[in-house]
Amino acid sequence: MGELTSADLTVFFLGLSTLLGAAHLCGEIARRLGQPAVVGEMVAGLAFGPSCLGWLLPEFQQWLFPHQGGAAVGLDAIVVLAVALLLLVAGMEVDLSTVWRQGKAALYVGLAGLLVPLAVGGALAWFMPQWWGMPAEASPWQFAVFFGVALAISALPVIAKILMDLDLFKTDFGMLALVSATINNLLAWLIFSVLMGASEERQPILHTVVLTLALAVAFLTVGRWAINRALPWIQAHLEWPGGVLGFVIVVGLASAAAAEAIGIHAIFGAFLAGIALGDSPHLREHVRHVVYRFVEGILAPIFVAAIGLEVNFVANFHPGLVLSVLLLGTAVKVLGCSWAARLAGLRGTEAWGIGWAMNARGELGIVLGLLAWEAGFIRERLFVALVVLALATSGAAGPMLKRLLRRELTWSLGTLLDARACNPGLIARTTADVIHQLGSLAAERAGLDSRTVIDAVLDRESLMGTGLGHGVAVPHARLAELRSPVVVVGTVPAGVGFEALDDTPVRLVFLILTPESEPVAQIQILRGIAHLCQDSQLREEATASQNPTALLAALRVAGTLEKSAVAQA
Amino acid sequence: MGELTSADLTVFFLGLSTLLGAAHLCGEIARRLGQPAVVGEMVAGLAFGPSCLGWLLPEFQQWLFPHQGGAAVGLDAIVVLAVALLLLVAGMEVDLSTVWRQGKAALYVGLAGLLVPLAVGGALAWFMPQWWGMPAEASPWQFAVFFGVALAISALPVIAKILMDLDLFKTDFGMLALVSATINNLLAWLIFSVLMGASEERQPILHTVVLTLALAVAFLTVGRWAINRALPWIQAHLEWPGGVLGFVIVVGLASAAAAEAIGIHAIFGAFLAGIALGDSPHLREHVRHVVYRFVEGILAPIFVAAIGLEVNFVANFHPGLVLSVLLLGTAVKVLGCSWAARLAGLRGTEAWGIGWAMNARGELGIVLGLLAWEAGFIRERLFVALVVLALATSGAAGPMLKRLLRRELTWSLGTLLDARACNPGLIARTTADVIHQLGSLAAERAGLDSRTVIDAVLDRESLMGTGLGHGVAVPHARLAELRSPVVVVGTVPAGVGFEALDDTPVRLVFLILTPESEPVAQIQILRGIAHLCQDSQLREEATASQNPTALLAALRVAGTLEKSAVAQA
Repeated sequence: MGELTSADLTVFFLGLSTLLGAAHLCGEIARRLGQPAVVGEMVAGLAFGPSCLGWLLPEFQQWLFPHQGGAAVGLDAIVVLAVALLLLVAGMEVDLSTVWRQGKAALYVGLAGLLVPLAVGGALAWFMPQWWGMPAEASPWQFAVFFGVALAISALPVIAKILMDLDLFKTDFGMLALVSATINNLLAWLIFSVLMGASEERQPILHTVVLTLALAVAFLTVGRWAINRALPWIQAHLEWPGGVLGFVIVVGLASAAAAEAIGIHAIFGAFLAGIALGDSPHLREHVRHVVYRFVEGILAPIFVAAIGLEVNFVANFHPGLVLSVLLLGTAVKVLGCSWAARLAGLRGTEAWGIGWAMNARGELGIVLGLLAWEAGFIRERLFVALVVLALATSGAAGPMLKRLLRRELTWSLGTLLDARACNPGLIARTTADVIHQLGSLAAERAGLDSRTVIDAVLDRESLMGTGLGHGVAVPHARLAELRSPVVVVGTVPAGVGFEALDDTPVRLVFLILTPESEPVAQIQILRGIAHLCQDSQLREEATASQNPTALLAALRVAGTLEKSAVAQA
Repeated sequence: MGELTSADLTVFFLGLSTLLGAAHLCGEIARRLGQPAVVGEMVAGLAFGPSCLGWLLPEFQQWLFPHQGGAAVGLDAIVVLAVALLLLVAGMEVDLSTVWRQGKAALYVGLAGLLVPLAVGGALAWFMPQWWGMPAEASPWQFAVFFGVALAISALPVIAKILMDLDLFKTDFGMLALVSATINNLLAWLIFSVLMGASEERQPILHTVVLTLALAVAFLTVGRWAINRALPWIQAHLEWPGGVLGFVIVVGLASAAAAEAIGIHAIFGAFLAGIALGDSPHLREHVRHVVYRFVEGILAPIFVAAIGLEVNFVANFHPGLVLSVLLLGTAVKVLGCSWAARLAGLRGTEAWGIGWAMNARGELGIVLGLLAWEAGFIRERLFVALVVLALATSGAAGPMLKRLLRRELTWSLGTLLDARACNPGLIARTTADVIHQLGSLAAERAGLDSRTVIDAVLDRESLMGTGLGHGVAVPHARLAELRSPVVVVGTVPAGVGFEALDDTPVRLVFLILTPESEPVAQIQILRGIAHLCQDSQLREEATASQNPTALLAALRVAGTLEKSAVAQA
């Protein structure tokens, strides 16, 4: 601990916390605007980078995020660690066993999604190197191969997340997309690693190819076997869960070191280690969970924002280049994959859906571009274009799938509620009182006449009381005029009737309006609430809330729990 | 990401994974030998440090853990981050609200535990600076104050853990120990921060005192209030749990930066931030859990092992100095605290118990010594003595409390089972068959005659079947000849009777022997198993185990779950 001076420490801690805080805030703003969080995180980095803060207050920017010295190296070490663990987690998402089960279709799509972009992108880069801005010192073939791989990569974690949001994860369509992305990732990282290794010029390219393949094969056979044998032993004999957690990180970092030592990039080792670890049925959900949370919540945002810091996006944004990369990247990937999917027997819209899903490049596309830029394969301006490609394709995948497959997001309380929909501390003596108050609020939010809403809910209530027991009630109605579901929630500290089966006074009331055109929404929402209200701690906390924010906070936490429970089921 | 070369990256990843892996392994060995894990973690660092590997293979040691260059600064940054987050977690353990409730007794013990060592240690350091090895360049008063504080510190997290293991956490005794340690920690870190700030010679000491106090007061009033207001908002509006997790780390690191900037050490800021965060009832268990797990499982072992790396324990181990620090430190702390506890009205053995609990110094004592050594207040040899003091007092606290208060560890499956007690795949057609096989194994482990054991269990079984339902049975007996409880477990894939209430064939059998002298043990163990076997996933996994290790692994994970469920109840 003697390497960093006191001034270094101040800057290190301040820089890190600024970056992380800004990334989370901007990530949330992006989400509100319907964009992926990663877009916001990148913007946060840009705001503190040369493009913005460095232009306004160059000296302050240099102080907070210096380019050399202890604090700079320290921040760099954290970012390097973040990338390695990000790829470790990406590897853990890979499910090898499904690759064999899925067979032909996935192989077609995975290979087409790799080879079509590689061929088309590589050829264009070879014949028009000036247009894509090849650096003078780069070798044309390396530039061409890299450009092809950059267009070809698919982001397995992003695709998995989108499929989960659209409730497609366990469908045939979802499995096909995931397995195709797995094959794509394995091969793309393999090619990229060989490329990086060969660029070092320490060894002939054949040497690198052999080493990379040997490492991959070793991990997927012996490594996988050894890890699968070691995990139960560790779980049985070392402290739980610290021992297993330590083992996962040790294997990840040691593999990163091994890959770097044989001349390919560290992250390929971490990725392979992730596959071998994630593949073992002995790796418990609990450990995955802690690693995921830490990487997703802390390390990934720091990494993405740190990229924004390094790049001058304003000076290096060339509209022509960005647009052509965007069009070319999307065209080769979407067309290539949907063509292969159709060959494999999928019908039109589903084949297009596979194409748009595979088109998402996410953080993996950014990592690839960053490493190539640092290695001198590409210029900053192409890196900027690749970042835009990664962000735009990830943002487009969800909406395109939704439209093509006519899928709606699963309705969950988390997405339907905001603070204005929460109304704690209602003063009401009867069921009708409560329905009047919450009904008016719901009508206001839905833009409907409050009389209509209240009458519909009261009608439904008169058929049979909607008390669920445990002090929770769910008055509801389906309305033809409504566009999309509306939920409002209130608490009644004094308690009211609602004809609950268990005769407990109702203190927590969800009023639910759904469109007649969406028969599933009502069932989904009711099921979600019923599941959620099994949690007695949650009921107490929600009922005791003193203000809308506290009520929303109590319910949102539960919303995630419910979601993860569903995902596990 | 341009600061670290490829060679740096290899060394960085390799060094980090070596340190973490060795720390976990040696930590486990220490635990097996009845020592705290931290002792093993420190030994792991020593093995790779100058004392051992550096002596055997000096060049290799220098390559793997260099003293300068990118990899050295990178590792340093990780260690610095680890210390800050360790103190953040230590702060989160502090429960301010109990301080007011506990009142006089805790104030007595907390103050005595601070002031007696401070006065005695300070005076001895002042009058005999040579004996304790004061560096020539240090100022005598700083040396004296530091030495006093180093003897005075108590490790709140270690004490909390010991109390939990002995089932004393929620007792009056436990609360008194915790609150006294809290008061001790607050004041000791305050004094130490002032000392560190004053050593910088950038500002007069009064300035530092005022700034430190102002920072502490600001955190415990305005900061606490603001965090408590911010948390529900973040939970309601940012992504859960990533948003809250990010917020905790941002607050911790920003506070560390603020403390470092005003001239006291970063970790005091992290500690205060931890108190303010941990104090909020809105901080969910889930977020605490992820932070704890990551700090305990990954960062703390790296930090402790990294200390071993930096110090040449062999060359700097002066038996006379170590022994006098050990005797003096234990004497002032144990006598001071038990005297105060007795003044506050505790009876003899309990007062001594408080003294031995407060004597545990754990990682906090090591952090203190390390910073003082780096600041030049003390020489390496005194640092070594302080490390031994920290380790020995933490190791002694548990056994002393157990003996003084006649407390037994709560019996849990995790501590009773090992792989040799697991016997999957029994071939048996009747209940008696199973009891014969498991009974012989249990008798062998207990060192008793197998006939006696089997008869006792069969007798008990004949009174009433011990099938719990869900395919689990718990044949058991109490034996006068037995010294301590014995549990063995077997699976019967084909299923047998055991007169289970639900008529499900029994496939998972725990045979339990307890001494007649310990009436509570049987109830504790049976309750634990019943709780554990509510988990259907666990039952399936245990029943499907192919070998003893897999069976043990399945049960140990559940053992922790059960324990944490009990701790929460």
